[in-house]
Amino acid sequence: MGSSFGDLFRISTFGESHGGGVGVIVEGCPPRLELDLDEIQAELNRRKPGQSHITTPRKEADQVEILSGLLDGKTTLGTPIAMLVRNKDQRPGDYSDMAVAFRPSHADATYQSKYGIQARSGGGRASARETIGRVAAGAIAKQLLRKAAGTEILAWVKQIHTIEAHGIDPSTVSMNDIEANIVRCPEASVANQMIERIEAIGREGDSCGGVIECVVRQPAVGLGMPVFDKLEADLAKAVMSLPATKGFEIGSGFSGTLLKGSEHNDAFIPGDDGRLHTATNNSGGIQGGISNGEPIVIRVGFKPTATIRKEQQTIDSDGNATTLAAKGRHDPCVLPRAVPMVEAMVALTLADHLLRQQGQCSLW
Amino acid sequence: MGSSFGDLFRISTFGESHGGGVGVIVEGCPPRLELDLDEIQAELNRRKPGQSHITTPRKEADQVEILSGLLDGKTTLGTPIAMLVRNKDQRPGDYSDMAVAFRPSHADATYQSKYGIQARSGGGRASARETIGRVAAGAIAKQLLRKAAGTEILAWVKQIHTIEAHGIDPSTVSMNDIEANIVRCPEASVANQMIERIEAIGREGDSCGGVIECVVRQPAVGLGMPVFDKLEADLAKAVMSLPATKGFEIGSGFSGTLLKGSEHNDAFIPGDDGRLHTATNNSGGIQGGISNGEPIVIRVGFKPTATIRKEQQTIDSDGNATTLAAKGRHDPCVLPRAVPMVEAMVALTLADHLLRQQGQCSLW
Amino acid sequence: MGSSFGDLFRISTFGESHGGGVGVIVEGCPPRLELDLDEIQAELNRRKPGQSHITTPRKEADQVEILSGLLDGKTTLGTPIAMLVRNKDQRPGDYSDMAVAFRPSHADATYQSKYGIQARSGGGRASARETIGRVAAGAIAKQLLRKAAGTEILAWVKQIHTIEAHGIDPSTVSMNDIEANIVRCPEASVANQMIERIEAIGREGDSCGGVIECVVRQPAVGLGMPVFDKLEADLAKAVMSLPATKGFEIGSGFSGTLLKGSEHNDAFIPGDDGRLHTATNNSGGIQGGISNGEPIVIRVGFKPTATIRKEQQTIDSDGNATTLAAKGRHDPCVLPRAVPMVEAMVALTLADHLLRQQGQCSLW
Amino acid sequence: MGSSFGDLFRISTFGESHGGGVGVIVEGCPPRLELDLDEIQAELNRRKPGQSHITTPRKEADQVEILSGLLDGKTTLGTPIAMLVRNKDQRPGDYSDMAVAFRPSHADATYQSKYGIQARSGGGRASARETIGRVAAGAIAKQLLRKAAGTEILAWVKQIHTIEAHGIDPSTVSMNDIEANIVRCPEASVANQMIERIEAIGREGDSCGGVIECVVRQPAVGLGMPVFDKLEADLAKAVMSLPATKGFEIGSGFSGTLLKGSEHNDAFIPGDDGRLHTATNNSGGIQGGISNGEPIVIRVGFKPTATIRKEQQTIDSDGNATTLAAKGRHDPCVLPRAVPMVEAMVALTLADHLLRQQGQCSLW
Repeated sequence: MGSSFGDLFRISTFGESHGGGVGVIVEGCPPRLELDLDEIQAELNRRKPGQSHITTPRKEADQVEILSGLLDGKTTLGTPIAMLVRNKDQRPGDYSDMAVAFRPSHADATYQSKYGIQARSGGGRASARETIGRVAAGAIAKQLLRKAAGTEILAWVKQIHTIEAHGIDPSTVSMNDIEANIVRCPEASVANQMIERIEAIGREGDSCGGVIECVVRQPAVGLGMPVFDKLEADLAKAVMSLPATKGFEIGSGFSGTLLKGSEHNDAFIPGDDGRLHTATNNSGGIQGGISNGEPIVIRVGFKPTATIRKEQQTIDSDGNATTLAAKGRHDPCVLPRAVPMVEAMVALTLADHLLRQQGQCSLW
Repeated sequence: MGSSFGDLFRISTFGESHGGGVGVIVEGCPPRLELDLDEIQAELNRRKPGQSHITTPRKEADQVEILSGLLDGKTTLGTPIAMLVRNKDQRPGDYSDMAVAFRPSHADATYQSKYGIQARSGGGRASARETIGRVAAGAIAKQLLRKAAGTEILAWVKQIHTIEAHGIDPSTVSMNDIEANIVRCPEASVANQMIERIEAIGREGDSCGGVIECVVRQPAVGLGMPVFDKLEADLAKAVMSLPATKGFEIGSGFSGTLLKGSEHNDAFIPGDDGRLHTATNNSGGIQGGISNGEPIVIRVGFKPTATIRKEQQTIDSDGNATTLAAKGRHDPCVLPRAVPMVEAMVALTLADHLLRQQGQCSLW
Repeated sequence: MGSSFGDLFRISTFGESHGGGVGVIVEGCPPRLELDLDEIQAELNRRKPGQSHITTPRKEADQVEILSGLLDGKTTLGTPIAMLVRNKDQRPGDYSDMAVAFRPSHADATYQSKYGIQARSGGGRASARETIGRVAAGAIAKQLLRKAAGTEILAWVKQIHTIEAHGIDPSTVSMNDIEANIVRCPEASVANQMIERIEAIGREGDSCGGVIECVVRQPAVGLGMPVFDKLEADLAKAVMSLPATKGFEIGSGFSGTLLKGSEHNDAFIPGDDGRLHTATNNSGGIQGGISNGEPIVIRVGFKPTATIRKEQQTIDSDGNATTLAAKGRHDPCVLPRAVPMVEAMVALTLADHLLRQQGQCSLW
Repeated sequence: MGSSFGDLFRISTFGESHGGGVGVIVEGCPPRLELDLDEIQAELNRRKPGQSHITTPRKEADQVEILSGLLDGKTTLGTPIAMLVRNKDQRPGDYSDMAVAFRPSHADATYQSKYGIQARSGGGRASARETIGRVAAGAIAKQLLRKAAGTEILAWVKQIHTIEAHGIDPSTVSMNDIEANIVRCPEASVANQMIERIEAIGREGDSCGGVIECVVRQPAVGLGMPVFDKLEADLAKAVMSLPATKGFEIGSGFSGTLLKGSEHNDAFIPGDDGRLHTATNNSGGIQGGISNGEPIVIRVGFKPTATIRKEQQTIDSDGNATTLAAKGRHDPCVLPRAVPMVEAMVALTLADHLLRQQGQCSLW
């Protein structure tokens, strides 16, 4: 309830920025899946703070330890895979002011109202550190999907503040293109503008948001469980559970609302591979809540980071008006580090639906 | 799995356009809730086809029968409330062509690929008729939320095709304003343009989409279960499970990605009622995944109806290219009838989270 | 929550003895399963009251209507199968005294303490009438298991009050043997004694209990999900959710606690059919929580019916001491009618685990 | 799915005898619960091997580390509590023979048939080591129940092989009585016979089973969710998921099947504390699936340990007949160490139902 995600391929995350560590249990992974542990660590490295000068300078090794579920490098007897990352570089003092003054648009105040206890030490579970478990589990989901269906999942930064990239082709963009720069925008010229913008806003003590786009290439056909667990519905939930998200689109998204049916419909055309193809992909790879085999394309909007160094008006826990200028070491923009988080949530959603599809539809 | 929604306040829907009827079981409703049955029927009337000349001319009485769970007008011993609406005005012949030619961007093809059987008679569960169970259950959720917290949920049409209403204030708009016209846009002058646009596009044999906005006023404080079941994540899933949805926003949404943190953050101000208030509401009533008591504001994008009378290129179930011009009686625009569906899904999500909040946080 | 059972093959029941009817939604059934509707009705007939002079004389037709989920006699697009049985022979007056005096060992008092409302009209959901949905859904589960693995599930009365049958061989007993007499004990001579005992006790205005045994022959190998969802654990829950149950055993059961390991262990022997066989079956077909292919054998203890005509000491809803002699029409012994209920719960458990096994272990 | 238990108070266990460690995540625990960590460790000490000469001589420190979810000794913001116990005293060589010869009545063969991979190193998740997570989580559930309702949960050994204790009164037995001897039977004279019997059978290289009884004193009234999640049904599942269990009884259990209704029914009598009391407790504290406030009394049958030093007939993984005499260090009787496991599973079940009851029935 709240810290678990998925039905058959199910993860439960734990841990906050204070305490012994953060991690995840992956339950339901099929047996005899050979796991590349370096790939899990590589995904965590893409997520970790301090990776470039446009992210928070906090340093965390974020080295993962596999506690259970593997034997000779393979998943074993349907047993849970537990992964642990120890907490290291804690400086609770950075958050001392926040203990009294609620950060505007952060989780401090709502957590207190819900749980009747004051959040401290960097926001507890509202800290981005919580996403470590998601990314580690997502790296396993990716390997499962690759083995089962040859599926590839890639996300990238499409927009930072007012700067948007228009030249990225979801059907051909590669991991190398994305990782070629620190902002993770595969359109190189735009990437440079984005980096400059983040630097400039960061220097002001301010923050910015943007849009991440994600593609699933070669998804299994038939994923999704109408009517409530349509694939796009579960993808929406998956990514909207990430910190700082404000919007979700699939395929044509909100711009599709401006088209007529005759313009928006994706005409069916024959394919070489035994499945129907479509001439366009306004559907974003999902029709009637079920994947049709075309690339799944989604976009996620992230608001600007709530914690900023600029002075803001707020209220302290005694109800008195005050001002707050955050100290600490915060990301001026979460998007570069959120790219692997989006990929992870998409992978987890698809892995779960793959097993659910097997469950209901593979007997005969 | 797929036809159930919610954890504690849980609904399971059943039925398709062919067969004996459609309906829903509501499980987990608190005992001793006095139910206004007329209100349930009224919500179904807002959803039903044939209600105006801009919806499908199909006529369905959609009269609901309560099969169980009530005694003397009240919910009883925690028992499931089953509701049934009989199918009446079926004309399977309307769909005879579709049995062979896949409707572009409809669920026909993906259902067949997933279940290995041909969808018929209006799309089975992909039919909008499936949403009857949601709306009936949502009407109960609304009454629960009203009694428990004085909560009010209202949705309206904000945009049809390229016509958008800009003058609606979510904090004051009323049900009367919304129901004042057949397109359910509470800005009267814009509503007329919308109706004309739908008529014009319908005459072409084409269809259009748009955007529905929804507000929750006076929500309980503290709803939402970080980290995966954040309230906005579950709202996103809820509405993205409705037919024809392509996008979801909360609060500032995608436009919030264009702001800096100092502009986007909602400053806290003292309130008269013992809870923190915010000067602005870019958060859309949810911070850190938890409702803060401010109005919850979301927007949902709907694509143009897939089934159109205009001739389209497609493929038949033998894989041959063909064309299709739908007969049948289809909505040129689903949005007017989708308004109560959005309200219902929002109400169901909040009712579930209200009980979940009670479960974890009401012992001491 | 409470009225649903199963994860992938999931049922939700509804209805009580008052109101429009009782029924069930079956969710997650694989597509393209040909359903024998007569078989569903036949199971309901085995359960229904008034079937013989040793059951309650209440007459209910218990005719089932399939509301959804079928097309041309087959399950269709993964859609829920809803089934409804209308309520007919209601005589609320029979329960008028009980409205004030709590029946000892019945659910009246606990329901009132939990839900703050007085149970009426035969106990609401605590009525055996609730099991109609289970039996109807179980009849579908049986057909699924038969098609998928050739599985056969049979239960019978093994003990009534102090009379126990010792000559029944679970590996060969047939449905015909069981249905050969009204008490459903396949050992004919013992059956007659049982019937006489029930008649005698019934004449006293008293009631009796007993033990039902159930075998699953040719179960799929590999069902069960350690460590919490071991197959015997889920079977225990399944049958212990039936009204009036007091005990559960698998294989050697409590008598197995009297053996040494060297006596109790089932030696492995080679089989002709590619799976390991065991020389004995103290394990009852399940080892380590997983079915091994040997017959699954369980036993369920049922207490004597709580509602009796004999006068009993009790308390009324005002807290005053009083006596109660039930009127109404009650079974002196629930076991003959509980036989199909046990079979149904076992079938539902196995169907769910079959799909869960497919989900996790059928990819490669 | 399989390694998680509970709906609102939910645990997920991980780990096997090989690998880095075993543990558990507790999700859904109410905030602001002060946790006595020594009590958690004390429960683990009652479970751990090597605690006396009648258990396996394997030595494990089983020292628990709390990784998350606590701040200043209290549960915090609804955050998961992760607990880890490192693996230490591994001797995989002890199991080398078992890698080829399937242990009769152990999980080796079924795990292999289900997952297509050979269990090794002590049975993986079928090892009793898996129960560490249950016991640690159960210790938290006990503290929650004590604070919320003053509930006390105690289990003890009632029968070992053919020796049964008849003088234990569930309403007065104390933890001190139980812990007064190494077999955990509070009837001292019988305890000595039990210890001698275990020693004698152990010397033969054989094993024995028995019965554990458990009482819940002062349970909250109203726990249980008819019709499927009746409290006794969930208790049955809970304890039948423990290794080596063969039977479950509540209240009068199987012996209750020998009584007539007039003998078995528990007459209601007035109480001093505002709730109904019963003159007898054949119901075992649960009526209609709901706790009535009387002590909940259950019994669990455990078979003799499967792994024995005596030579047994079996089959190796190539299908050839062979014999096996286990080396390793195995418990001749699991019951003394299973006492805290039974308490833990009962506590976890009640904690979950307490929160579920709050969720549905505490609004008004």
